[in-house]
Amino acid sequence: MLRIITEQTEALTELRRICDRTHDDQIFNKEATVREVLQAVKRQGDKALLHYTAEFDGQNLNIEDLRVSGSEMDAAYQQVSKELLNAIQLACKNIEAFHRQRVPKSWVQFGEDDVVLGKRYTPVDRAGLYVPGGRASYPSTVMMNAVPAKVAGVPKIVMVTPPGPNKTVNAAVLVAAQEAGIEEIYRVGGAQAIAALAYGTDTIPKVDVITGPGNIYVTLAKKLVYGTVGIDSLAGPSEVLIIADQTANPTYIAADMLAQAEHDPMAAAILVTTDSVLAKKVQNEVDQQLRNHQRRLLTEKAIAHYGLIVVVDSLEEAAELSNHFAPEHLELEIAEPWELLNQIRHAGAIFLGNSTPEAVGDYLAGPNHTLPTSGAARYASALGVETFMKHSSLIQYSPKALQKVANAIQVLAEAEGLPSHADSVRLRSQGKSEP
Amino acid sequence: MLRIITEQTEALTELRRICDRTHDDQIFNKEATVREVLQAVKRQGDKALLHYTAEFDGQNLNIEDLRVSGSEMDAAYQQVSKELLNAIQLACKNIEAFHRQRVPKSWVQFGEDDVVLGKRYTPVDRAGLYVPGGRASYPSTVMMNAVPAKVAGVPKIVMVTPPGPNKTVNAAVLVAAQEAGIEEIYRVGGAQAIAALAYGTDTIPKVDVITGPGNIYVTLAKKLVYGTVGIDSLAGPSEVLIIADQTANPTYIAADMLAQAEHDPMAAAILVTTDSVLAKKVQNEVDQQLRNHQRRLLTEKAIAHYGLIVVVDSLEEAAELSNHFAPEHLELEIAEPWELLNQIRHAGAIFLGNSTPEAVGDYLAGPNHTLPTSGAARYASALGVETFMKHSSLIQYSPKALQKVANAIQVLAEAEGLPSHADSVRLRSQGKSEP
Repeated sequence: MLRIITEQTEALTELRRICDRTHDDQIFNKEATVREVLQAVKRQGDKALLHYTAEFDGQNLNIEDLRVSGSEMDAAYQQVSKELLNAIQLACKNIEAFHRQRVPKSWVQFGEDDVVLGKRYTPVDRAGLYVPGGRASYPSTVMMNAVPAKVAGVPKIVMVTPPGPNKTVNAAVLVAAQEAGIEEIYRVGGAQAIAALAYGTDTIPKVDVITGPGNIYVTLAKKLVYGTVGIDSLAGPSEVLIIADQTANPTYIAADMLAQAEHDPMAAAILVTTDSVLAKKVQNEVDQQLRNHQRRLLTEKAIAHYGLIVVVDSLEEAAELSNHFAPEHLELEIAEPWELLNQIRHAGAIFLGNSTPEAVGDYLAGPNHTLPTSGAARYASALGVETFMKHSSLIQYSPKALQKVANAIQVLAEAEGLPSHADSVRLRSQGKSEP
Repeated sequence: MLRIITEQTEALTELRRICDRTHDDQIFNKEATVREVLQAVKRQGDKALLHYTAEFDGQNLNIEDLRVSGSEMDAAYQQVSKELLNAIQLACKNIEAFHRQRVPKSWVQFGEDDVVLGKRYTPVDRAGLYVPGGRASYPSTVMMNAVPAKVAGVPKIVMVTPPGPNKTVNAAVLVAAQEAGIEEIYRVGGAQAIAALAYGTDTIPKVDVITGPGNIYVTLAKKLVYGTVGIDSLAGPSEVLIIADQTANPTYIAADMLAQAEHDPMAAAILVTTDSVLAKKVQNEVDQQLRNHQRRLLTEKAIAHYGLIVVVDSLEEAAELSNHFAPEHLELEIAEPWELLNQIRHAGAIFLGNSTPEAVGDYLAGPNHTLPTSGAARYASALGVETFMKHSSLIQYSPKALQKVANAIQVLAEAEGLPSHADSVRLRSQGKSEP
């Protein structure tokens, strides 16, 4: 049964425990395995991919199996319902529309003495998207990663996903990929897939940025290859924090909490409410909705370990607790959600009002569902078009403009003990050339 | 003597070798030490900081020494020349003006059926800036990190820098910090300083983002704490690639190459030119300028190992080689630099024309000098205001809007096997409440 806490110190301790649930020292134990996989793929390429796919996924592939074939891509359309195809298309449309807002644009500005400064934005050359697979099917993950890469203008996008039984890749995933514009898909997952994208193999191209969520091995692999390639973030288990007042509906809140818990036994679902009656009702509703839940065992586990209801005195206090936790998803199920917004400092995505369940954002409202977890919302943001772009600073000085700052630069260069820095300006301002 | 290469395959191999100069397996050997330092600081706090400062920096501090005192901050102004103070103030002013351009702003957009979507930008609560120290003095590093954090509106900014002889912190560094608005400075460096910022100690506050360059221990520590806190990037040794045609001045180019090489024996300086006569002249000029160089030994080492001149047939070929290398700094010392810009895909900062030595950007043009190194310009950008900000997605649906997408969300949730996701929408669209 979902615990109810009313004491603030206890609440802070519990939130800290839940937030830190993945900062476990036992994670380090997996690092040796991951490092070994990375090294093997770096050295042996495709051969190592086949080896680890047999070992970890139980699928015996040949090199020719690695890339999903055109006929498999086509056939996937026959395996999904018209309804699902429509839903995928609606999601793609909304995600694209949102991600086309405020795409960074290059700019220059002209200053005194013909100084030109600016920024020039360009997409990365190649992006690699990781999509979890095996027995699971996450077409939404495909779209949330592929659409921003497309909008950014990335010329080459490849996707990797582990094979399920009989080497198959889920049909919904293949359809979502094609609807999002991805044609190059490889049947490989785990740390070995991350290694392939980071270092390249004969079959799989080396990319510049790797995005997408995965299990702890995938996340560790992403951390280790970061610096060789860019990554989106280190995704941990999902979490929601709901702030609710007496106007909230306990049935809806219970469903939202279970929608989080059903992802993963390590998922977290937290309600912070000013209404102790509501707290009790949500507790009962969660029990109720769990009874015939399709994923009952896993979901109960998450609720038991990382489910929590905190009763507070005011919405201000609720906001402060939420800021401490810095949740991935924050729902404001209160009468005036926009009024509380100014007190929220850290949250990956904020869902306002009783008619905005997180599921709307998970699938098709448009904003990205790849969000910072485990308190990373203190410093990080959703995956976006920016994840697939970078900029170059632009600087042009004229002889006159350089002359004016020559002395200041020389003084600074001398203070830092860097004589050629000073020379590079002095020689120009004196108009010196080689004899 | 600077080598001249004219063969393209050889050039590519050499550029690859230079680009990969820090992806050395020997780096891994230092990881055990760094991990130990991080764990010790996490467990023992200030005590570990004093221990490692004695061991690595040879300075015996008391806990009270850790924070640089107000009187020391004041006294620093007496130790710098009026000229240097003016130069620091000019740099601060220009850096601030540039970083105030296009600061991300929150926005919302209103759609059909009262749907509201948007992004809300907020600064991080706390930033920690690392400034290399000891015998060196880098006031420019202070400004390039502190000013963007200030512009982002970070409420608490702290700086760490290792103590030099007699526990001192360089006066120019202290003045630059104060001019940039930093008042909280701690006398600690190395991996132990990164640990203090990531985990917090009794004296040093835990922060949300750590920025700033350092040696290999600092960089490894940043990589290891990434995920607990945000970081700017993993900085490697500095590098410049210069594209020059027959209109370029060999004296200036030689000075620019040495300005890069004098940073570090692992710094790289590369010239790619269409003019073989220029190549020869630059080779001679570099020799000439090295003769009485204040940092001759170190600079010669960098030139010998990571200095290179490549002669190519066309500017297009030069741009392609540059894209392969993805340089931190790119100088276009050619007649029509803006015309070549479209062919440049990856570079941290681009300096256009013969009157724009890199030193202008290093110190005071305005754009940030903290730039992606070792090929990271393929996917990363300069440090900026964004480094100290993050955004929350905003989503509000109305009952009517939710009703319209209810079916699509349920279809997607069922395809992903997540029943409570479907329930959270179904219950709302049916107006269901607890009995």
